[in-house]
Amino acid sequence: MAVLTWNRYGKSSVRLVKVRRTTEPHEIVDLTIDVALEGTFDKVYTDGDNSACLATDTMKNTVYAFARVEPIDHVESFAVKLAEYFCERPGVSTACIQAAEHPWTRLQPHAFVRSGDEEWTTTVTSNGDRVSIVSGLRGLVVLKTTDSAFSGFPRDQFTTLPETRDRILATSITSTWTYADGFSDFGKRDAIRSALLKTFADHKSESVQQTLYEMGQAALAACDGVRDIQLSLPNRHHLLVDLAPFGLDNPNEIFVATEQPFGLIEARITRQA
Amino acid sequence: MAVLTWNRYGKSSVRLVKVRRTTEPHEIVDLTIDVALEGTFDKVYTDGDNSACLATDTMKNTVYAFARVEPIDHVESFAVKLAEYFCERPGVSTACIQAAEHPWTRLQPHAFVRSGDEEWTTTVTSNGDRVSIVSGLRGLVVLKTTDSAFSGFPRDQFTTLPETRDRILATSITSTWTYADGFSDFGKRDAIRSALLKTFADHKSESVQQTLYEMGQAALAACDGVRDIQLSLPNRHHLLVDLAPFGLDNPNEIFVATEQPFGLIEARITRQA
Amino acid sequence: MAVLTWNRYGKSSVRLVKVRRTTEPHEIVDLTIDVALEGTFDKVYTDGDNSACLATDTMKNTVYAFARVEPIDHVESFAVKLAEYFCERPGVSTACIQAAEHPWTRLQPHAFVRSGDEEWTTTVTSNGDRVSIVSGLRGLVVLKTTDSAFSGFPRDQFTTLPETRDRILATSITSTWTYADGFSDFGKRDAIRSALLKTFADHKSESVQQTLYEMGQAALAACDGVRDIQLSLPNRHHLLVDLAPFGLDNPNEIFVATEQPFGLIEARITRQA
Amino acid sequence: MAVLTWNRYGKSSVRLVKVRRTTEPHEIVDLTIDVALEGTFDKVYTDGDNSACLATDTMKNTVYAFARVEPIDHVESFAVKLAEYFCERPGVSTACIQAAEHPWTRLQPHAFVRSGDEEWTTTVTSNGDRVSIVSGLRGLVVLKTTDSAFSGFPRDQFTTLPETRDRILATSITSTWTYADGFSDFGKRDAIRSALLKTFADHKSESVQQTLYEMGQAALAACDGVRDIQLSLPNRHHLLVDLAPFGLDNPNEIFVATEQPFGLIEARITRQA
Repeated sequence: MAVLTWNRYGKSSVRLVKVRRTTEPHEIVDLTIDVALEGTFDKVYTDGDNSACLATDTMKNTVYAFARVEPIDHVESFAVKLAEYFCERPGVSTACIQAAEHPWTRLQPHAFVRSGDEEWTTTVTSNGDRVSIVSGLRGLVVLKTTDSAFSGFPRDQFTTLPETRDRILATSITSTWTYADGFSDFGKRDAIRSALLKTFADHKSESVQQTLYEMGQAALAACDGVRDIQLSLPNRHHLLVDLAPFGLDNPNEIFVATEQPFGLIEARITRQA
Repeated sequence: MAVLTWNRYGKSSVRLVKVRRTTEPHEIVDLTIDVALEGTFDKVYTDGDNSACLATDTMKNTVYAFARVEPIDHVESFAVKLAEYFCERPGVSTACIQAAEHPWTRLQPHAFVRSGDEEWTTTVTSNGDRVSIVSGLRGLVVLKTTDSAFSGFPRDQFTTLPETRDRILATSITSTWTYADGFSDFGKRDAIRSALLKTFADHKSESVQQTLYEMGQAALAACDGVRDIQLSLPNRHHLLVDLAPFGLDNPNEIFVATEQPFGLIEARITRQA
Repeated sequence: MAVLTWNRYGKSSVRLVKVRRTTEPHEIVDLTIDVALEGTFDKVYTDGDNSACLATDTMKNTVYAFARVEPIDHVESFAVKLAEYFCERPGVSTACIQAAEHPWTRLQPHAFVRSGDEEWTTTVTSNGDRVSIVSGLRGLVVLKTTDSAFSGFPRDQFTTLPETRDRILATSITSTWTYADGFSDFGKRDAIRSALLKTFADHKSESVQQTLYEMGQAALAACDGVRDIQLSLPNRHHLLVDLAPFGLDNPNEIFVATEQPFGLIEARITRQA
Repeated sequence: MAVLTWNRYGKSSVRLVKVRRTTEPHEIVDLTIDVALEGTFDKVYTDGDNSACLATDTMKNTVYAFARVEPIDHVESFAVKLAEYFCERPGVSTACIQAAEHPWTRLQPHAFVRSGDEEWTTTVTSNGDRVSIVSGLRGLVVLKTTDSAFSGFPRDQFTTLPETRDRILATSITSTWTYADGFSDFGKRDAIRSALLKTFADHKSESVQQTLYEMGQAALAACDGVRDIQLSLPNRHHLLVDLAPFGLDNPNEIFVATEQPFGLIEARITRQA
């Protein structure tokens, strides 16, 4: 016999742009939102009984209606409002709102330029009693031309990598951090981002791992309200080109940037009392 | 104080093509492999001490060397070999091998054509004692032109969606299933795929949810060795175009295929004794 | 002084799915259409005078209305109807319709599975007097495990590539072909595709270039109505992995599939009287 | 009979990163380069005779070797050197070098952050006698919240679009411009980019077309050495959400950002004596 042991459903990739015109200069908020609900929806699956199945189209409409009413000063506050609302719908036990915020840089009071592919993220989950808020960023691509080494690693029968005391280090930072209960100073994300960038740039790196750990510590130091931070750092390898066949040296100057394969280093750093 | 509470690292997107020439006709296996290890690697992060840090480049080399020696009859067996090997390296507590297999269709004894973007997947995890095998597929895009309804759902202040007894249903199937311990008849994946497809096509659907549940049941019925199956079905909405302004009717004939937003329906179905 | 010396505008990526329900089994046509117009639109640019500027939204509506009325037996015939219609709008001198057809394979009378990323294409251009039809395909990914060599090429100071008499040859075929004026047997595209595939598979290749030329000749032979054919073949390099450091040979068996860089070979073959 | 009437071949997507360490702070150049050659290569296609076929692998090596020797102060100068070199190889009649430059913003003397997906481009073509240089940019995404109208357009049986005097205007700018023969002040691209951005932001727009024309004029004014400029502006539609069903107004505040379909407006503006 087969039994439904877990289910979740919702609407994904709701594209929402809000323009605040009541202020000068205009302000713009650009979000992609996912709504996902868990609850007592088993009969939708097992019996084809839709009487408890809030349509995903209704979820989308709800997002747009809330966007008109709410200021969306911070994406987290907006997501909390949505999560709390959906959590009160009949049958819902947990509502999860994920949002990606696409940043724009002001050109002029009413004009903007997109600041690359980097995005702010947040995941707000409510079970009716408690709301958890995990924010983050992704697509923050950085590179340093020195102060990065990788040596002293074990050598076995499959090891061919030479040791190096000076290499290019490049990555695309993905990070998520958990705010403490009751925290609401969401503008602090800028300080966290700055701490990540500064540490990446300044650290004398023995490995991606060590730099990741320093970055995580710096982020925790930058915002008291963060309980823990997770970092995922793909190692975007830049391989030194062998120019010797052409009678040329290559003093760490000419590199091939590769996409596949890549190292992937992940860790979580947690604040301790 | 900040403490390292979790870490994992490895090599991702190792692209491996193996040609078996000893048989006629030639056979080809096309894989993308990720290796990820957990273990006693804290000092790499906290002290910059790489003495326990197996280089991710070594992991890549190991994959290629194993590929030469192993037959790779099933991607699962190959991943098990890799997981068991890595799990025995110093300091490793858990080794996880993820593989995507890109299928090719034979044209001729030595020539092949790619069968679209659909992929077989497997995730093999070993902790030294126990090996878990979760296989699946993704990117299997299907559409039915009838036998799909969505009605009887609740209406609130934000509901505008009309009820329908006949709509297009389209999705891109992602599924993962867990094999029972000791299972090794991995060729059964074809029967699971067939069951998913046949059920999608034949089911009189009251919702994506109900069709998902039927598909999961059929997959469990198709392979005794599957303990549970998870399905993730994005609802690729096909919206009926309003042709009335142009003096034309539209008897369920002309649709806009949209990408954003999309419904997302997910569930797990588990075999019970 | 700056002068407007060329302009074109239109609507792109109009997603259209037509279901033919009057027949059994159901049939489905899945198209992405671009409309582009040239004509006497200078004042739109230079004076902000929109009186001659057919809205691109109107173009989109026109596509959907025509889709209701036209059978769309062949994407080319449908594109011809649209091109001729748009060419008669005020101010239009040239109308260009580009269409990509996304193929589906039948599972059951009312259900279908997407046949990968391969697409049929057509570009129909009308200037009111004459209609040109250039059809094609793209994303047809093929690979052969033998019968491909590359040797005898010149060696200069920057050459390091070894000669080979046996390598993997893989490519993603993009091809466009021009039909003769008055040609209308558009179902012949299947024969052209088959000729391309069979020649790729059977040819004893001295280079991608030579195989391309054979493929083009075979395509012309497969359809009298084709005046010329253009092929664009990226060389998707599969590099032999050096396993010697691990004490293993590699008799053309283990390869890395790479994406960057890639060779790109292009040519046009024209029928001569 | 079938005859080879055109051919071209080369290496695409050569990824090159050069670090200049001899200066403080370090400088980085990040390029993706395509080499394409035309010439007397017919026998490669028709006879399988590779004696004239410079290997595309050799082209790649040449790019890296030149990168070591050349300063790459401007991507254009580097591409000219490559084009002239390849044009002198046996059999080559035309060499075309395309380059995309991926910009990085300095964080610190030896660390950088990627400035989004925007890229500088150049296409340098040499036939041995004459070198043409067409530079540009792509992926520059901009949006304005007011000063954009679209009204006064013709209405026919398929027109449903309402007129508007105030809408969001968003686009991703792709532009290419041709430098006059002998021009070498390639740092002027920054002035061109600034002129495009400033005009987009400041223009009271009656249509994308009119704004495009103003942008092109401003670019020509910003750099005397530009002979003509081409702009391609997709209209990234932001649709006003109808909130009336929920009892809410929407005073140009809440929008859906859509990707498909999109308007596409293109033109060339040429300097006249």
